[in-house]
Amino acid sequence: MAPLLKDELDIVIPTIRNLDFLEMWRPFFQPYHLIIVQDGDPAKKINVPEGFDYELYNRNDINRILGPRASCISFKDSACRCFGYMVSKKKYVFTIDDDCFVAKDPSGKDIDALAKHIQNLLCPSTPLFFNTLYDPYAEGADFVRGYPFSLREGLPTAVSHGLWLNIPDYDAPTQLVKPRERNGRYVDAVMTIPKGTLFPMCGMNLAFDRELIGPAMYFGLMGDGQPIGRYDDMWAGWCVKVICDHLGLGVKTGLPYIWHSKASNPFVNLKKEYKGIFWQEDIIPFFQAATLTKDCDTVQKCYIALSHQVREKLGKIDPYFAKLADAMVTWIEAWDTLNPKEGSAEANGKPKGK
Amino acid sequence: MAPLLKDELDIVIPTIRNLDFLEMWRPFFQPYHLIIVQDGDPAKKINVPEGFDYELYNRNDINRILGPRASCISFKDSACRCFGYMVSKKKYVFTIDDDCFVAKDPSGKDIDALAKHIQNLLCPSTPLFFNTLYDPYAEGADFVRGYPFSLREGLPTAVSHGLWLNIPDYDAPTQLVKPRERNGRYVDAVMTIPKGTLFPMCGMNLAFDRELIGPAMYFGLMGDGQPIGRYDDMWAGWCVKVICDHLGLGVKTGLPYIWHSKASNPFVNLKKEYKGIFWQEDIIPFFQAATLTKDCDTVQKCYIALSHQVREKLGKIDPYFAKLADAMVTWIEAWDTLNPKEGSAEANGKPKGK
Repeated sequence: MAPLLKDELDIVIPTIRNLDFLEMWRPFFQPYHLIIVQDGDPAKKINVPEGFDYELYNRNDINRILGPRASCISFKDSACRCFGYMVSKKKYVFTIDDDCFVAKDPSGKDIDALAKHIQNLLCPSTPLFFNTLYDPYAEGADFVRGYPFSLREGLPTAVSHGLWLNIPDYDAPTQLVKPRERNGRYVDAVMTIPKGTLFPMCGMNLAFDRELIGPAMYFGLMGDGQPIGRYDDMWAGWCVKVICDHLGLGVKTGLPYIWHSKASNPFVNLKKEYKGIFWQEDIIPFFQAATLTKDCDTVQKCYIALSHQVREKLGKIDPYFAKLADAMVTWIEAWDTLNPKEGSAEANGKPKGK
Repeated sequence: MAPLLKDELDIVIPTIRNLDFLEMWRPFFQPYHLIIVQDGDPAKKINVPEGFDYELYNRNDINRILGPRASCISFKDSACRCFGYMVSKKKYVFTIDDDCFVAKDPSGKDIDALAKHIQNLLCPSTPLFFNTLYDPYAEGADFVRGYPFSLREGLPTAVSHGLWLNIPDYDAPTQLVKPRERNGRYVDAVMTIPKGTLFPMCGMNLAFDRELIGPAMYFGLMGDGQPIGRYDDMWAGWCVKVICDHLGLGVKTGLPYIWHSKASNPFVNLKKEYKGIFWQEDIIPFFQAATLTKDCDTVQKCYIALSHQVREKLGKIDPYFAKLADAMVTWIEAWDTLNPKEGSAEANGKPKGK
């Protein structure tokens, strides 16, 4: 049997080192195409294990391809990965960090994280009402008594957010306070995050439908020359969730787990995060209150409308947000240039090629 | 060590048969006081295994204690259990069906469902933002990166909704379609249902804080003389969730599991449910849109305000809802009569005795 979506999914990996971690993923990833986004010094040679089908972009490539619009792609931060989303021509993207390995389920079996993400994406979401037995489409489960029948078809799934065993995704203060904490709890569930509820989206183990939500998966301005880091995926998650809620798309979280091997340095993280820790107290209420008008009927239109609100409302907190709002617009311009609309897909703002 | 909350929690059991099921629960329930609500023929003698401390109310008792207000308590339906909530003088209530037995966790150990409910109730909820590692207060877990620090103290927990292994809580159509489906998935998580999200609350395995939410735990008019059944707990859940969201209280779902032994007859259930299956398509949007004003600062005031909205908006669907709205008011009158306010508790509408 051919691997699911073999020709419809790219794996995007941001990295600054040799990709030895792929060896462990070989049985699962080898059939797929990889897009490697090399961060840092473009002169450095990144080794990719033999047998993988890949394209690799370094900073010079990004600058060449995007020209002045390359300014919207972060440098020296894993936020650069979103360039890979933009150059992909596939319907689906899976992105994973290079310190993430194959985890085992409680029975000791290797977890095929990618297969589970694909299953999550191909199966509807249920953001409009909570199902107490979690994913109602899972084998052996269903909608429980009291679940409206009119909602049982669900909505298309745009995002599948996977979790991590071993090193949990904690912020620097929590890392500092609990340096030895490890996540050993395997929660056997996938659930839809309800409409109107925001969540902290982690980019370590994440899959999404590019056609449905790709243009909103912008990881913002982080790292080199920016006052903030480690909020790239959070930023994307807040924007994505608001837009999914508006467009009637689902976001799932839970399975699959990967094995996160290495805690990043909490002192370095604290330096990157500390402004974000203040700012998120305003950013989250901003996104919780954000509304989009009816004429925002494509992801691009939603995203541009959101960028205006970011400039107007968050710009008061720090000039950084005006710069970020500009970058959000630049990102969409770059996305549309690399993904020109054509034919009937145009009305839906769908990218080219599917 | 004394059992947790030994003198602050009552176990409420609605039944029509001898309570042999208590034998299996003896190690867990025996230290607590039981309130047994006998449904059906009051002349029937219900046997309670020796050694349990209990009070038992049959229909004659309910009529005697409530007088004309007894009309708000359902007959020939497990909805009658809410009479037990009203006569309890404790801060916490756990309610369980008499076809529910002790379940085992994946390691084969008996699950002390009551202890887990107590833990859920004593520990805060997080309805304002989703934590991807589920209960952030669980051992080995915490708030993940991107979770606002201002929200990490959480809110008081009003409700702990437990789940069921073996027979899932399905409606009649799903029972008919999947007669052999059993729930074998042990999901090792407790989560807060986000603010603004409704859920199907099942009364089979449920605990709550009477002081925080008791007066909203009305199980409606079901069974004898009513056009509907099996929506008692659903009705309570919708009202409770709207009021908890308004008052800043949390509702949790997930662990603990009980073993649900016996599927009820799907043909009988269909007869009870079929109006509810139509009506819930309107009831749920009604509750999703329901808002309460600032002056609704006690559960009682919230509940009375909700009863007005039920009469006004749902009354159009069927005369039943006008009758139900009346019963909601009667229920609050009866509650306040049995639980007179006193001293400083008065301002908060807290029941007597704590």
